[in-house]
Amino acid sequence: MSKVTIIGGGNMGKAISELVTKGGNTVEILTRSDASTAVTGEIVVLAVPYGALGEIVAQRGDELAGKVVVDITNPLDFQTFDGLVVPADGSAAAELAAKLPRAKVVKAFNTNFAATLGTGKVGENTTTVLVAGDDADAKQGVVSFVKAAGLNALDVGSLKRARELEAIGFTQLVLAGSEQIGWTGGFAVVA
Amino acid sequence: MSKVTIIGGGNMGKAISELVTKGGNTVEILTRSDASTAVTGEIVVLAVPYGALGEIVAQRGDELAGKVVVDITNPLDFQTFDGLVVPADGSAAAELAAKLPRAKVVKAFNTNFAATLGTGKVGENTTTVLVAGDDADAKQGVVSFVKAAGLNALDVGSLKRARELEAIGFTQLVLAGSEQIGWTGGFAVVA
Repeated sequence: MSKVTIIGGGNMGKAISELVTKGGNTVEILTRSDASTAVTGEIVVLAVPYGALGEIVAQRGDELAGKVVVDITNPLDFQTFDGLVVPADGSAAAELAAKLPRAKVVKAFNTNFAATLGTGKVGENTTTVLVAGDDADAKQGVVSFVKAAGLNALDVGSLKRARELEAIGFTQLVLAGSEQIGWTGGFAVVA
Repeated sequence: MSKVTIIGGGNMGKAISELVTKGGNTVEILTRSDASTAVTGEIVVLAVPYGALGEIVAQRGDELAGKVVVDITNPLDFQTFDGLVVPADGSAAAELAAKLPRAKVVKAFNTNFAATLGTGKVGENTTTVLVAGDDADAKQGVVSFVKAAGLNALDVGSLKRARELEAIGFTQLVLAGSEQIGWTGGFAVVA
């Protein structure tokens, strides 16, 4: 049984909090502005846009020490839709890990649209959450609450692979933005 | 009606040549060593490993001028399986385009396993070929012969997006290499 804290009250935060409770685990939901309430989960999902990560680090950096911190962001340049705003050889997750050296940062959920987390389906396929991170137990914690909710989760490797996961998230947003796929579709992973 | 030349006799070359004929188009198959036979297709698929692109450019660079040249490679470091051998802000396709300035380079097929091109299915999903390139007509030529064979094809944008397609191909190879997916599975795209 895990306790998962979700910071962020948007579509993704809601969808992930529903996953947690669907799997029989416990959730605490905090908004970004709710900086005075303590984080009590051992897994903390930062369900906020890339641009808000710095604010959370500033507010809660000490509090996140020792915890599993899940980065779900897609650091797109939303002005141009033509690139990412992180260095080409890095990732939002790598930046976050550098700012939170005492936390165990995991990249996950950035390749999933919220609707597909809610239904557990991408078309006829079970939704798969792709997970990257350097701490095996931290990744396993995320994989466990995802699988407990009936979804699939696959381990793509170390946190370096967040670069590729962000490229996948970017491509999926490009396809949705150009209306070639819908927000209930996207990438499915077939075993 | 298009004529497509495939250079390379491996699994991918065979699968793509079958797609071409299945769609009612004409195919010419050349092996890498077959440098004395002229390329007669207006679309030329370089169905070779990344490391062989330089040799083909050296042999056939002049001949490829004006043609649609399709790069299908995944430039993995196959020693470590932990990165790509192209610059982080570039791609194999961008390198190829720089070496073939008079050709219209399209990235395609690198996110598809050969088996899924043969069956037209990834699990229960119709196989989708993701295509990137700077020349709209060149991309359309590839999209057309793919769709004529009953598969889907989606345009992910300019040739800059080859970087993201190579990240997707890399991730899919990581998942197959770690036996989390099989070579008949991988990424499906759901509309």
